Amino acid sequence: MNVHIVTIGDEILIGQIVDTNSAWMAQQLNLIGAQVIGITTVADTDESILEGLKNATENADVVLMTGGLGPTKDDITKKTLAGYFKTGLVFHQKTWERIVRLFERRGRTWTEAHREQCFMPQNATIFKNKMGTAPGMWFEENGKVYVSMPGVPYEMKYLMEYEVMPRLKEKFPGKPIAHRTILTVGEGESRLAKRMERFEKDLPKNLKLAYLPGLGQVRLRISGTGDNEQILNAHLDEKVEEVKTLIPEFIFGFGTDKLEAAVGRVLNGKELTIATAESCTGGFLAHKITSISGSSAYFMGSVLAYSNEVKMNQLSVKEETLKAYGAVSEETVREMVGGILSLLKTDIGVATSGIAGPSGGTEEKPVGTVWIAVGNREKIITRKLIIGKDRLKNIEYSTVQALNMVREFVIAGY
Amino acid sequence: MNVHIVTIGDEILIGQIVDTNSAWMAQQLNLIGAQVIGITTVADTDESILEGLKNATENADVVLMTGGLGPTKDDITKKTLAGYFKTGLVFHQKTWERIVRLFERRGRTWTEAHREQCFMPQNATIFKNKMGTAPGMWFEENGKVYVSMPGVPYEMKYLMEYEVMPRLKEKFPGKPIAHRTILTVGEGESRLAKRMERFEKDLPKNLKLAYLPGLGQVRLRISGTGDNEQILNAHLDEKVEEVKTLIPEFIFGFGTDKLEAAVGRVLNGKELTIATAESCTGGFLAHKITSISGSSAYFMGSVLAYSNEVKMNQLSVKEETLKAYGAVSEETVREMVGGILSLLKTDIGVATSGIAGPSGGTEEKPVGTVWIAVGNREKIITRKLIIGKDRLKNIEYSTVQALNMVREFVIAGY
Repeated sequence: MNVHIVTIGDEILIGQIVDTNSAWMAQQLNLIGAQVIGITTVADTDESILEGLKNATENADVVLMTGGLGPTKDDITKKTLAGYFKTGLVFHQKTWERIVRLFERRGRTWTEAHREQCFMPQNATIFKNKMGTAPGMWFEENGKVYVSMPGVPYEMKYLMEYEVMPRLKEKFPGKPIAHRTILTVGEGESRLAKRMERFEKDLPKNLKLAYLPGLGQVRLRISGTGDNEQILNAHLDEKVEEVKTLIPEFIFGFGTDKLEAAVGRVLNGKELTIATAESCTGGFLAHKITSISGSSAYFMGSVLAYSNEVKMNQLSVKEETLKAYGAVSEETVREMVGGILSLLKTDIGVATSGIAGPSGGTEEKPVGTVWIAVGNREKIITRKLIIGKDRLKNIEYSTVQALNMVREFVIAGY
Repeated sequence: MNVHIVTIGDEILIGQIVDTNSAWMAQQLNLIGAQVIGITTVADTDESILEGLKNATENADVVLMTGGLGPTKDDITKKTLAGYFKTGLVFHQKTWERIVRLFERRGRTWTEAHREQCFMPQNATIFKNKMGTAPGMWFEENGKVYVSMPGVPYEMKYLMEYEVMPRLKEKFPGKPIAHRTILTVGEGESRLAKRMERFEKDLPKNLKLAYLPGLGQVRLRISGTGDNEQILNAHLDEKVEEVKTLIPEFIFGFGTDKLEAAVGRVLNGKELTIATAESCTGGFLAHKITSISGSSAYFMGSVLAYSNEVKMNQLSVKEETLKAYGAVSEETVREMVGGILSLLKTDIGVATSGIAGPSGGTEEKPVGTVWIAVGNREKIITRKLIIGKDRLKNIEYSTVQALNMVREFVIAGY
């Protein structure tokens, strides 16, 4: 199945936002064996949308459109689509009832613009958008499929996952394609590739290994095609088992798993509780932990100690320690772990202190220097990172490392 | 001048990288009054590039191509371009000499692929690429301009800045275009549109208003064209002033500003310090505040109180309060503010407690119910939100609301 993505939005054409939707969609479509043959961004005008549609339709079986909906501008895209399919707009009662309920629940009132949002091209199949007000639309004409979705990323992702992709798979069944994704943390792409060299060389022609690096994490994806789905899946599972023996210490999960979820599982598995004492990560570590549903079972709380006063008064870091070694030091994060353990009475404590930047560094401790400690009442492990000058990257990378240290600490059974 | 950007690259079509080049180019082009009418991504094949070129040329005066060059795949784009312009490839001695010098300086040797990189379409004007080996190419045909540049961002940016943009400005001395972006928080798109109805209706033909909604925030963009840049800019500034009088309470910044930066500015302006006491936002609120460089001047720290024990022991929330009203209640967040103020001795405290979901709700307090309180020693303001079922969205939306409540509280001068 050939897909052309059409993104509707002046904000992309003036460079105000970067189109990240298309890359996500392309990845997902690839996983079901679809090929994205083109991505086109057009303006929010009838003429541009028609032009984009016309060009996209030439070689594609499926045209996926995002954007150009929403209460203030939905007319254009919907009217253009109705014109393109030579049909009219009709009022969609179900969508209207859903919007009214949504507003009632939020204790707010709808406006005329929301009512107008409910007029839909007559030939459209309407997809309920659980994440927002503008529904998705599916059209079929001359064996081709056209889908229109809102441009808000989480709304588009919801519709793709639950409505569009399952229907596309059914309508365009191709040669079986399957994937396995192995999630690793704690080792870089090139070193992993070295460990996997032999394995990669020996892969049969129908299997392919790809490295997808992220911040502190690398995903390994094995993709394969075959004539028989069952044999292909068995073959892939076999290869995953082989990888497990090659780099066991770096694998924390598979598929769409998350490191913070893996951390939650190891804590739950040993019935351990945790608390964080954060300086440079400023709450991002706790946010990651609590982004997992059910984390209240093992996460008790945190003290974010940005100022030295909070480090001393709440976490019992000694003034002499701060004076002798500084806030960004192994000694300080060790005392922070001790402090949070006695304060919140959890089994495990994790502490971070660093210079997130972009300013504030010294020759001895450059921007990007971060100390992390993880421990319980018996043992504390520490690690020093030297990252870079980008504030957010420093915060995110430290958080990944801290989560992985917790994972390693719990697995080691200290 | 109408510009169509054509990005050549399989890595974009499989979603491996996000096309950030186009957004940068669009921004730069806008600043010189050019209008980007479309962005198209095509595959690394002769056929796709030709197709993309054909479609792009239809309505554009200028076609800017990036990617598809470089030692491993340059043949395709250059041969395609030579074919398109019905010309041949000739050896470009100057480029060759530059590459040889470059390699000598680096103490490396060139390969045959680098020699082949020096064959260029005969009708091309060659731009020296100081940042890499693949030069830029400029073509003119039937009054239209075609430019081919490498896809490596800093190479493309160098060529755009020093070669392409100056020549485009000279060749198409066009009408100036300018934009203003007004950032708002605390009111939805359709209600803002209602307040702005008259203003929007009365806008002269050369100005256009667009609504760009995000989670809890809406950006308003006024774009305009004119004959005189100075008059146009004055006109836009006037309109911004008008908008300021129409929806003053919702505007927190302009351009690429951020809400958390605006909060930092109002705190800094009154020399106030702040601390957070978070339950459902789990550190995300503190993370947003500390994502701003320099936040250590006003942010002292937080207590993240996920468990009731931490709410009671660290934040002095009374056991009776939790029993009578529950952890997700106005009474609890009020006491949390009181607790964090006495604990960390800041001027302002902000507290959140809610059911982030996706499970854990009751009929009385459904998933997505969140209470927020902001206050000082004299006054505490509270707000109840009912959001939705998506955990991350609940956390992010609550955080935006909490930040805005802090902004409002400080501005009100309680």
